[in-house]
Amino acid sequence: MQFIDGGVTAAKGFQASCAAAGIKYQGRTDMAMVYSQFPCRAAGTFTTNIVKAAPVKWDRDIVRSGKGAQAIVCNSGIANACTGVKGLDCCEATAAAAAGALGLEPEQVLVASTGVIGMQLNMDRVEEGIARLAPALSGSRQAARQAAQAIMTTDTHPKEAAVEFEAGGKKAVIGGMCKGSGMIHPNMCTMLCFLTTDLNISSELLQEALSADIQDSFNMVSVDGDTSTNDTVLLLANGQAGNAEITEKGADYEAFAQALHMVTVSLCRMIAGDGEGATALFEVKIAGAESVPQAKAIAKSVVTSNLVKTAIAGHDANWGRILCAMGYSGEVFDPEKVDLWFESEAGKIQIMQAGIAADYSEEEATKILSAPEISAIADLHQGTASATAWGCDLTHGYITINADYRS
Amino acid sequence: MQFIDGGVTAAKGFQASCAAAGIKYQGRTDMAMVYSQFPCRAAGTFTTNIVKAAPVKWDRDIVRSGKGAQAIVCNSGIANACTGVKGLDCCEATAAAAAGALGLEPEQVLVASTGVIGMQLNMDRVEEGIARLAPALSGSRQAARQAAQAIMTTDTHPKEAAVEFEAGGKKAVIGGMCKGSGMIHPNMCTMLCFLTTDLNISSELLQEALSADIQDSFNMVSVDGDTSTNDTVLLLANGQAGNAEITEKGADYEAFAQALHMVTVSLCRMIAGDGEGATALFEVKIAGAESVPQAKAIAKSVVTSNLVKTAIAGHDANWGRILCAMGYSGEVFDPEKVDLWFESEAGKIQIMQAGIAADYSEEEATKILSAPEISAIADLHQGTASATAWGCDLTHGYITINADYRS
Repeated sequence: MQFIDGGVTAAKGFQASCAAAGIKYQGRTDMAMVYSQFPCRAAGTFTTNIVKAAPVKWDRDIVRSGKGAQAIVCNSGIANACTGVKGLDCCEATAAAAAGALGLEPEQVLVASTGVIGMQLNMDRVEEGIARLAPALSGSRQAARQAAQAIMTTDTHPKEAAVEFEAGGKKAVIGGMCKGSGMIHPNMCTMLCFLTTDLNISSELLQEALSADIQDSFNMVSVDGDTSTNDTVLLLANGQAGNAEITEKGADYEAFAQALHMVTVSLCRMIAGDGEGATALFEVKIAGAESVPQAKAIAKSVVTSNLVKTAIAGHDANWGRILCAMGYSGEVFDPEKVDLWFESEAGKIQIMQAGIAADYSEEEATKILSAPEISAIADLHQGTASATAWGCDLTHGYITINADYRS
Repeated sequence: MQFIDGGVTAAKGFQASCAAAGIKYQGRTDMAMVYSQFPCRAAGTFTTNIVKAAPVKWDRDIVRSGKGAQAIVCNSGIANACTGVKGLDCCEATAAAAAGALGLEPEQVLVASTGVIGMQLNMDRVEEGIARLAPALSGSRQAARQAAQAIMTTDTHPKEAAVEFEAGGKKAVIGGMCKGSGMIHPNMCTMLCFLTTDLNISSELLQEALSADIQDSFNMVSVDGDTSTNDTVLLLANGQAGNAEITEKGADYEAFAQALHMVTVSLCRMIAGDGEGATALFEVKIAGAESVPQAKAIAKSVVTSNLVKTAIAGHDANWGRILCAMGYSGEVFDPEKVDLWFESEAGKIQIMQAGIAADYSEEEATKILSAPEISAIADLHQGTASATAWGCDLTHGYITINADYRS
């Protein structure tokens, strides 16, 4: 099992394309299509926000139907959320246009949108985009990368990952792309993530693997605590690896789950490190907890604290803010047992021992906290459970991006 | 019942003073004392953070004892949190020093601290400060103001309020001061608030009035979502108004509760409007909810959203972020029934009707959102309950203040 270079086209039979449709952005691509040359089983997880974007409703119905899907059409710039009946009509029209171009039924086309909430999509532009997306489909490495670029909003770089693994004696691949920079918060999944695999696996197990995985991957990411209306993770499996269909849990299922997790955690770290305005990936590991839910709640509380995040932005070992954020997590633990370390490529340093300051060098701490990827590791000394959350620092860049996002 | 000019010395028999003790800040006052010439009943509410500062533990024991108190000593600059046994020793030594200077028992002296977590107090400086605080006590208007200034950290101005009311045929006063700018989040109370009243009321009812009040006042304020280790509200009542002791609920108790609420809401609005880096007070009113807890949860979710707060900073009517934050509050409601307005001194405008954009002028919305006090008013059309929360915008100033707070 290993990472390979690739994205949404890395698995056999998957193609992608992009187009500049002028949805909102000018001078860049803003639509992407993912297509499987063979029918796929489809799994998905969606935002838990009561306010759900129209495409979330469309996709949820398709995933729930169990009939699978064969294509995904995505636009960036306009979220198609809070758009009422007209927004749902846009989804249907988008799927119908793509289905027409690809020789599919509309119900085989998943739809996704990201961008400004409340604006209506210009369907003429969407349909023109689809007319260019379909003939441009390609299974090349470059096509995957370009699709990953087209779905970006405030992301500063495309996010892709792929892993090769074995199942039923056959080589299989899972790959994917995601976007997400603002409005990222652990509650279901990140904004948009499209995963493809050539594994042959039942719909039920495909969904089960995805639903289980996001609890430890996308649901542990936070950029700003805002759970989007559009959060969507889609996973398509077309069976082209040639393995016998996986219909029960066992070594093959576990291999797939592990490969899936390698891809999703890899994408999660990219999302966190590319949070709006972020200069650093901030990883929080809680060890020695009584239970995994306790460890997760505490890790999330730290990774979402504005005060902790601004301290990281300032390369400031202001550990009191970390203990404070642990303390208001809602979980019960003994603060006077907590040990805390900071770690990065520049080294590892113990900052706190048994709830009070350890004897450490501020200079060394600042050096460690100036790296592009920083970990805070707390040991509660209460038990053996652990959890990891991913976030980023909070900087002037976040304010600049969000104080006038729409103009 | 009316507001009067005054603060912590507005009620009969209360005095205050301040001193520059060099705790952490240079060139400014950083210690304050509040003293009653007569014994007081004492009520208090404290942070729910598992990590509690030493003075919180000290004060909680005094309040719980039911024996009352007669003085408060407060320092700004160092929070005396995460300071272990030594931190508790500092509280005791502080109370003992003040008791010695005032002719009281240490258990009659409440202690409060605000500032950096994890550093130890220099007790020599604290004791020198107390030696100057005691002889400087005064019941003057100016003394109250100077005490309110001395307890500030990143606050930009002192926060005081006082209300005159009648109980048992006598004129009574409740006044107070508070500080709070960062680490403010609804869960128990804001950082530090000291209230004084000359009302004669039983300890039990004093505590009951305070505990009930903070649910709709301090617990509805959020600057940055971080619940402090030091949050403390103290309320001293010395009975000098001359009314017969209030020992049961009735018109007098209600008058007091109303006066208390006028003072606390007034202070809450000052805290929110003076949030770190804030340029605007941001008030969120949720109406038409099924229950008050539902209305509160939704109001808090909006007022704590970084994306909403940055939109307010940009005077941007990005209402989708408000509906989004309502949607992830954890409360169930129908987004397609929601109406939304923005209001300020510059006017009132409907932004959203039945879950989608109303026909409004962006120019007018921007004008309304450029005022120093802004309200967002959402009607869920589900019931008759309502709630209000107070926060502020999220600006570059917040980042500047917090990215390098300790240096």
